[in-house]
Amino acid sequence: MTDTAPGAFAPAEYRARCDRAQAAMADAGLSALLLTQEAEIRYYTGFLTRFWESPTRPWFLVLPATGDPIAVIPAIGGHLMGQCWITDIRTWPAPDYTDDGIGLLADTLAEVTPKGARIGLAHHIESHLHMPLASHARLTGQLGSRVLMPDAGITARLRQVKSAAEIARIENIIAIATRAFDRVPDFAAPGVPLSTVFRRFQMALLQEGADWVPYLAGAAEPGGYGDVISPADDRPLAAGDVLMLDTGAVRDGYFCDFDRNFAVGPPGPEVAEAHARLIEATEAGMASALPGARFCDLHAAMEAVVRLGPGGGRLGHGLGMQLTEGPSILPADDTVLVPGMVLTLEPSVKVTGDRLMVHEENIVIEDDGPRMLTRPEPREMRVL
Amino acid sequence: MTDTAPGAFAPAEYRARCDRAQAAMADAGLSALLLTQEAEIRYYTGFLTRFWESPTRPWFLVLPATGDPIAVIPAIGGHLMGQCWITDIRTWPAPDYTDDGIGLLADTLAEVTPKGARIGLAHHIESHLHMPLASHARLTGQLGSRVLMPDAGITARLRQVKSAAEIARIENIIAIATRAFDRVPDFAAPGVPLSTVFRRFQMALLQEGADWVPYLAGAAEPGGYGDVISPADDRPLAAGDVLMLDTGAVRDGYFCDFDRNFAVGPPGPEVAEAHARLIEATEAGMASALPGARFCDLHAAMEAVVRLGPGGGRLGHGLGMQLTEGPSILPADDTVLVPGMVLTLEPSVKVTGDRLMVHEENIVIEDDGPRMLTRPEPREMRVL
Repeated sequence: MTDTAPGAFAPAEYRARCDRAQAAMADAGLSALLLTQEAEIRYYTGFLTRFWESPTRPWFLVLPATGDPIAVIPAIGGHLMGQCWITDIRTWPAPDYTDDGIGLLADTLAEVTPKGARIGLAHHIESHLHMPLASHARLTGQLGSRVLMPDAGITARLRQVKSAAEIARIENIIAIATRAFDRVPDFAAPGVPLSTVFRRFQMALLQEGADWVPYLAGAAEPGGYGDVISPADDRPLAAGDVLMLDTGAVRDGYFCDFDRNFAVGPPGPEVAEAHARLIEATEAGMASALPGARFCDLHAAMEAVVRLGPGGGRLGHGLGMQLTEGPSILPADDTVLVPGMVLTLEPSVKVTGDRLMVHEENIVIEDDGPRMLTRPEPREMRVL
Repeated sequence: MTDTAPGAFAPAEYRARCDRAQAAMADAGLSALLLTQEAEIRYYTGFLTRFWESPTRPWFLVLPATGDPIAVIPAIGGHLMGQCWITDIRTWPAPDYTDDGIGLLADTLAEVTPKGARIGLAHHIESHLHMPLASHARLTGQLGSRVLMPDAGITARLRQVKSAAEIARIENIIAIATRAFDRVPDFAAPGVPLSTVFRRFQMALLQEGADWVPYLAGAAEPGGYGDVISPADDRPLAAGDVLMLDTGAVRDGYFCDFDRNFAVGPPGPEVAEAHARLIEATEAGMASALPGARFCDLHAAMEAVVRLGPGGGRLGHGLGMQLTEGPSILPADDTVLVPGMVLTLEPSVKVTGDRLMVHEENIVIEDDGPRMLTRPEPREMRVL
């Protein structure tokens, strides 16, 4: 029995987040924020549960212009939310086919905002509406003079800069995954099916201290791989393959996100050269990741090494409560790096034909420059 | 290197799904379906990837009134989708801050539907819009005379009835989880932190053959637990605790979803009685789960045993590609049971004070009645 929700920070951490959001809301002329997504609700409350895996029930959090957030949630979550720092928790017995929380939510919004209020809801890239469209229409109808409108990216922007407590958690899960990667040679060898390697790697992550493993993708193919998002098949590893494992494991609600490449037997010259180029690109990204630089500057620095050309995709992104967060290392992203940002450097490179390779490290921006959170990989590939 | 996407069924399975959907679309007067969610895109294509863990990129599938589905997806997914049975795959380099796939999607919809077409999009309970609201507004603007409207629940309803191939997969992951549950006494004992039990149980699931473990919740508390959605804390198991583990593990893209309760030391009389009542409720649900019965009939049968009263929550739900699917075992759900439906029976019961216990089994409806897919738990609790 816990008095505090598992994984929750001290209340001061959440109060500071609310204060910052409320200051930004005042600037944007918003009387409340309506949060519907897992990471943003957890950001303000500490509410950590894997129950979001079920799509059935919507969850709502209202952050008023002043005061603490109000949870409007299914009754099944009341006990756990009651262990979080917030005290105003309103529940309904979901799922309710007649009104799945919308009346309660509309009443709550009416209670804490004036008539004609502007209520911010995420509309931006990387956000979703975590409720049925029918409920959204119903809510709009019940709000009367109050209007839902874009949230000015307030929560997404706040989440870009991590606190010391958040960075410590990310470092912890990175250390766990580093130990798991070091154990890959114990179970990955020619003849072992890739699906077995995936299972064993996830077991290693758990044994080393991950709470759960929400993400693992990779490949084992000759001379590089065709994509970086595939699940495992049962093909046995063979000499000449490049084995890549890319994981997002979680401890206390925070992610790592990095990969490692392994040559099955000595790598051919194209593969060895591609790997060295990836490390060189990572170093170029690192050298450019100074406070005041922009995400597009990081892209330019890495692109100069990997030369993917236009449409080559992003070369890294924010990291924290989600596997991938904004900003993105893209030519179009002019977000300025500030201390506290945690990001991935994730260059990819074409090998031969349609084969590619990807490398990824995790870094944090500090006052005097970037600090590598992962143990930097040498240019020479790991060989199984 | 695979020629077929990992986990994909034979093309005939997907063609049959599309045929059924297209027949329902004709009845509903819809010229196309627009799919944005993981399970619904996978349902028609076989596209299986854990990359949905990243919220960054939207994915679209268009099912026209006739012909095969068209994928409109980020370039990063083109290679994997190319291994699926569909052939018309259109990609853009996402994320794109100017137009994140909406122009390409609008052009595709215009190409395959007449002017004034009605295009179905999920609006119903348990559905979400898996794209930014800003993109949704942009799409609406670009569609001109064509309109997005509720999809008449077509995909959700089709997904309720599983094929033989789907049922075989669910049975497989259930067998895997059954073996993992049988190993719990190997690592759960007084003094072991609950967080360690959670890690070891996930490792057991992987070792027994799960591909990944998207869901594990549970508790270990004296005389029952306060909720069923919490992650683990570090409190050591102690005599008198009820340990509950509820997992949704995945093999080949299909879920199991069941729990088991363990008494740490001999259970007290209230706990033993509560467990026996849960099994009795499950048996009552099983006895009522005949083709032609309604989900509300199952609720009534189980509620008569557990007596939760109004607002007691659902007592089970559909199961398959997602941890929880519709329909729900609720008084308000009058969906009729038909052969091929796979569902959970999930009664809960109050023990003493705010303590509750929950039990869950998985069943399939067949022509002559229900068949239990899980190994039914006896009334007497497992004791650690």
